[in-house]
Amino acid sequence: MLLHLSTWSEVGQFLERSKTIVIPIGSNEQHGPTGLLGTDWLCPEIIAHEAHKGGADILVGPTFNIGMAQHHLGFPGTISLRPSTFMAAIGDWVRSLAVHGFQRIYFLNGHGGNIATIEAAFSELYAEASFARRPAGFACKLRNWWDLPGVNALAQRQFPVGHGSHATPSEIAVTQWAYPDAIKSANYAPQVAGSGPIREALDFRARHPDGRMGSDPALATPEKGGELVRLAVTGLVAEVAAFGDEAPVL
Amino acid sequence: MLLHLSTWSEVGQFLERSKTIVIPIGSNEQHGPTGLLGTDWLCPEIIAHEAHKGGADILVGPTFNIGMAQHHLGFPGTISLRPSTFMAAIGDWVRSLAVHGFQRIYFLNGHGGNIATIEAAFSELYAEASFARRPAGFACKLRNWWDLPGVNALAQRQFPVGHGSHATPSEIAVTQWAYPDAIKSANYAPQVAGSGPIREALDFRARHPDGRMGSDPALATPEKGGELVRLAVTGLVAEVAAFGDEAPVL
Amino acid sequence: MLLHLSTWSEVGQFLERSKTIVIPIGSNEQHGPTGLLGTDWLCPEIIAHEAHKGGADILVGPTFNIGMAQHHLGFPGTISLRPSTFMAAIGDWVRSLAVHGFQRIYFLNGHGGNIATIEAAFSELYAEASFARRPAGFACKLRNWWDLPGVNALAQRQFPVGHGSHATPSEIAVTQWAYPDAIKSANYAPQVAGSGPIREALDFRARHPDGRMGSDPALATPEKGGELVRLAVTGLVAEVAAFGDEAPVL
Amino acid sequence: MLLHLSTWSEVGQFLERSKTIVIPIGSNEQHGPTGLLGTDWLCPEIIAHEAHKGGADILVGPTFNIGMAQHHLGFPGTISLRPSTFMAAIGDWVRSLAVHGFQRIYFLNGHGGNIATIEAAFSELYAEASFARRPAGFACKLRNWWDLPGVNALAQRQFPVGHGSHATPSEIAVTQWAYPDAIKSANYAPQVAGSGPIREALDFRARHPDGRMGSDPALATPEKGGELVRLAVTGLVAEVAAFGDEAPVL
Amino acid sequence: MLLHLSTWSEVGQFLERSKTIVIPIGSNEQHGPTGLLGTDWLCPEIIAHEAHKGGADILVGPTFNIGMAQHHLGFPGTISLRPSTFMAAIGDWVRSLAVHGFQRIYFLNGHGGNIATIEAAFSELYAEASFARRPAGFACKLRNWWDLPGVNALAQRQFPVGHGSHATPSEIAVTQWAYPDAIKSANYAPQVAGSGPIREALDFRARHPDGRMGSDPALATPEKGGELVRLAVTGLVAEVAAFGDEAPVL
Amino acid sequence: MLLHLSTWSEVGQFLERSKTIVIPIGSNEQHGPTGLLGTDWLCPEIIAHEAHKGGADILVGPTFNIGMAQHHLGFPGTISLRPSTFMAAIGDWVRSLAVHGFQRIYFLNGHGGNIATIEAAFSELYAEASFARRPAGFACKLRNWWDLPGVNALAQRQFPVGHGSHATPSEIAVTQWAYPDAIKSANYAPQVAGSGPIREALDFRARHPDGRMGSDPALATPEKGGELVRLAVTGLVAEVAAFGDEAPVL
Repeated sequence: MLLHLSTWSEVGQFLERSKTIVIPIGSNEQHGPTGLLGTDWLCPEIIAHEAHKGGADILVGPTFNIGMAQHHLGFPGTISLRPSTFMAAIGDWVRSLAVHGFQRIYFLNGHGGNIATIEAAFSELYAEASFARRPAGFACKLRNWWDLPGVNALAQRQFPVGHGSHATPSEIAVTQWAYPDAIKSANYAPQVAGSGPIREALDFRARHPDGRMGSDPALATPEKGGELVRLAVTGLVAEVAAFGDEAPVL
Repeated sequence: MLLHLSTWSEVGQFLERSKTIVIPIGSNEQHGPTGLLGTDWLCPEIIAHEAHKGGADILVGPTFNIGMAQHHLGFPGTISLRPSTFMAAIGDWVRSLAVHGFQRIYFLNGHGGNIATIEAAFSELYAEASFARRPAGFACKLRNWWDLPGVNALAQRQFPVGHGSHATPSEIAVTQWAYPDAIKSANYAPQVAGSGPIREALDFRARHPDGRMGSDPALATPEKGGELVRLAVTGLVAEVAAFGDEAPVL
Repeated sequence: MLLHLSTWSEVGQFLERSKTIVIPIGSNEQHGPTGLLGTDWLCPEIIAHEAHKGGADILVGPTFNIGMAQHHLGFPGTISLRPSTFMAAIGDWVRSLAVHGFQRIYFLNGHGGNIATIEAAFSELYAEASFARRPAGFACKLRNWWDLPGVNALAQRQFPVGHGSHATPSEIAVTQWAYPDAIKSANYAPQVAGSGPIREALDFRARHPDGRMGSDPALATPEKGGELVRLAVTGLVAEVAAFGDEAPVL
Repeated sequence: MLLHLSTWSEVGQFLERSKTIVIPIGSNEQHGPTGLLGTDWLCPEIIAHEAHKGGADILVGPTFNIGMAQHHLGFPGTISLRPSTFMAAIGDWVRSLAVHGFQRIYFLNGHGGNIATIEAAFSELYAEASFARRPAGFACKLRNWWDLPGVNALAQRQFPVGHGSHATPSEIAVTQWAYPDAIKSANYAPQVAGSGPIREALDFRARHPDGRMGSDPALATPEKGGELVRLAVTGLVAEVAAFGDEAPVL
Repeated sequence: MLLHLSTWSEVGQFLERSKTIVIPIGSNEQHGPTGLLGTDWLCPEIIAHEAHKGGADILVGPTFNIGMAQHHLGFPGTISLRPSTFMAAIGDWVRSLAVHGFQRIYFLNGHGGNIATIEAAFSELYAEASFARRPAGFACKLRNWWDLPGVNALAQRQFPVGHGSHATPSEIAVTQWAYPDAIKSANYAPQVAGSGPIREALDFRARHPDGRMGSDPALATPEKGGELVRLAVTGLVAEVAAFGDEAPVL
Repeated sequence: MLLHLSTWSEVGQFLERSKTIVIPIGSNEQHGPTGLLGTDWLCPEIIAHEAHKGGADILVGPTFNIGMAQHHLGFPGTISLRPSTFMAAIGDWVRSLAVHGFQRIYFLNGHGGNIATIEAAFSELYAEASFARRPAGFACKLRNWWDLPGVNALAQRQFPVGHGSHATPSEIAVTQWAYPDAIKSANYAPQVAGSGPIREALDFRARHPDGRMGSDPALATPEKGGELVRLAVTGLVAEVAAFGDEAPVL
């Protein structure tokens, strides 16, 4: 069930049988010469919507499409929240969902650069309860789509060389599978990009002139993307069910 | 051109011929018994994407899908930012775009409840420049899709009675046209909803038990939605062009 | 009754017969070659205090004299809060009044540039209650003095040409009536000022070199100001009474 | 010269001969059974305006009338900013004035409870410059009106017993002198109020049931108020001149 | 008892016999040619730990070692929080301690520049309770170590000339007594430093080229430091006991 | 070289030969029945100070002793910053150091719960530069002491069973080595604690009744702690040197 295509009473009915919601979350940022700017929010959206299409009784919320990508601001099209803004926004999303009685907020993440801030945002939310000596009433979970059971292993088998860590062939393959009309091509030099630390935008662009980190996106194909999506969907559905079934301690 | 399906170098090329970007912005909130929770962000997205499909050389950014909807939090599925969070997030979107050289940021809005906060966010951004005695380097514009030339007049002709101000037949018609598989039906009692002031969520729900304000959504049809979209697209393309052509004073 | 000239026990007694308070709110900003810097906070203060002098049993709080005027910072004497600061301050005023049991907070506004931020501040306040699933306990209302019943119409009759939108002859007339010793004169070139968009301070001053927007302040007279004040007082007293009598829904 | 009754060009002319401005700042809070709620912002306003009336060539800005009075919130009519809000607002006032070229911002304060927060606000402002390794461009000064040369000594002579620290006969005398129509009377029990620590509002009211701290307001007379005002005016004018003449080190 | 060398259950047992905790708080900032950068947090730490060593049944928390020292940022090694950050951090310390049931939070301060911000932080904490019409549940107290009974008088006797207000011989003596291996020497020119206002860092360094204010640190000796510490310890233990014994009013 | 026992001119001299500083950072929080509340800030402080004592020419700043420990607030003695406060404070530390010309800020961390927030704080700092299209001027690095080369491997050899993730025998061993007078003992039930998710404080205490996570602290000995410290010191000195020698790209 897609929340944005549902009515409030349909969501009310869903809440009678489940207190769990899935929020695709990512970033809108450069992904090298051929990766889509939306890659990091499209991937979790694609996977979560595919789980819905496949018949799973899960509720998928709107996609949180702008994350923490300050280091990519040297490349046109990148849009980033500062960590403090990102935390405030995640906080308001979760507080809104908790008002309705959601008790399990599952974020399916598509951007490594989001992880620290999302975790900090969870702590900020929990801290409200901790300082007030009361239960939070909800639990948050962060899962990167590539960390769903088996997915990383599949990507390593698909791309034993040149997977890298940004503008990876696996994430690009997922978007190719879902948006075949938006497949781009380019010559890569070098074929496999270099790597290095992540700091401010000018530093990043100096180190990574075309935006890639350690990857060879030419390896991506829509077919490989489809394999990744199918495996991720299976893992997602199982994890969400387990999260919802988790016994509370309070 | 859809930013999220483009690469950074494609956006870089666009910037050589235009400094203007369109951001669909709305809210994810209850829209009565039959309106979709995504109505307010779907409408501007539908119109902006349709303008792109129709061949206009405009750049459409990702959709800003969560806005200021605190008064709707009494209905399941509503997700709201506080105004302060909303302003911080709009600020970071605009600052990101300004880094790349965008000078005209056009927000196509789908939610009346967003207007005050978006305008305040613009002032917050301009104030940075004003306190620093320097030019801002960019101009922001807010346009509600129903205020595009001719659109309100058409909606009044289509729905002379029962248009109302929330969960209106015009906005529902737009989503019906775009998402025909998600058309919902219900009995409305009363047929045309009442109206009243907008305050906190509990007060709102007590005044507006099914979420509508002054509207009869049963009047919506996909055909009427299509008429509205086509007229809005024409107005959008013209306005964006005029905004881009505006002569700067600094 | 003027709060600042009353004791705490007098306010306590007032609260036994009414839960409504009027707060004049405005801005301290340039008003063209002849308008007073205090115009926008003086006008609502003049009207509210005149209502008190006329015998109405209303409680008028201190004047909130600095608002959102970032666009006027290019002219000496303008003092502006950023929107975020303005919202925080309005929030603390309202929270303070709510502590005492005030349930109806009526802001009589004198500055168009304040409107968006004040509305956003109200939403920020209501959101605290909405996120906490509880009633707010108070209602806020914003009314521009020129929107009081009949006032705009009178101003249009008084100044059919050259009223404009900033440094208008109507607001200047009100201050002339109240502060006859502070009436200024100047040559205006052009006689009726131009108009344009409102952005950052440097842009504003480039577009509006003497600070006026669309107005011819030479039309103002103390007599016309007196007419405006008398009409506004009547409207204010009636509106405040109606606001106080409003039946709560919670 | 009163800024709010001046035009922007008059302020511009003033800036050619002086870079100094005086801001009366206080608080709107309970002042015992007979003190006015406005006492703490009226006193510095009275003194500064009297200096202006007396012919001093000083520029007096609008009165900052709401300060830090959280401990008085147990008494009706008190309006308080949190320290963080107060600091943000002082910051925006000073930044606005600095935009125009004011280099000496002199705050004439009427409330002891404001001192810590105003000093912290100054440090917050200076810190912007310090972190940026640049001059601030302005200097701030805080002066309590009772600390102007000779004023405290006069008050001690006028009220050798029962001066106390809140709702003092000296501050009440000043308002009696300026607002003779608003003189109140009451029986005090005890005649001289007790004292104690200042914490949250409920604690404060429990310790100080009628709001006074150590004072006997019955001793106040308009005549004594007039003596205090005249002495304070002399000190103010001299101090402001000295502040403006101070040689910069940068 | 030193909290950081205790277990949570030991602190739990302490809470059964006392609700009071001592927090040494200071600043890490330049202290002239020979003063240690840690002087202002070392002094209260030395005194509080010495009280513990001497057998007093007090609980000493971790040292809050970074305070408000923006004006010293022109000298290498200074680390400063902005006042707003400092207030937020003090707030979280106190809220944490209140969660455990501490009702008396005693800050032993070593830096004059901290005073305003710490007081503002207390007010910010109390304001939460005041706005919510509830008791705070705790009381905060700030004491500068030099204001403990008799200490200032001793320092004046020890250093009748050249005590000054920053990099004073008394504070340097205390660190010499505790850290004899870190005693530094230098030629001072002039022997007794000048004084002046405190503003931003560049202004401060221009006025106070070697960092001292009014002091002659050459007068410090470890022996004098020991005398000061012993007297301060006596005062601290007595004050903390009295604070803990204070009868609540709520 | 310990910054807090140095003068500003000594730090100035250090800056002539190195732009790198080491900041021990941790948390003050419960560590099970026998672990010290200071464990997480003592461990990095012990290691960094030991490196200094061993003769390495490194500069060690004051210890940042309070971190993100909201989940431990159910146990007496824990003091936690909210993530937003922690980020603001880290920001001010780094900005202060950058004012002096430090270009390499190395945080030696002792608390797993700090990692996300520290990384988010770095991004917040870098974002200032990225939004302003300028170099940051400094680089930050976070290293957990147990991730220094070889340290985790040694701990696994020392404690093949019962190491766990909180109140681990390795961290307790380090404090036992440094503070032999503060070694505590208790009976553990169960001998090896359980594990589980980390959420708000009440949830945490319900899952982990004595505070441990997966650990058997009885295995700790001062000797093992000494081995860990010596290995960590070697790694720290090498890493800090390499960080300082890193070639900039801008």
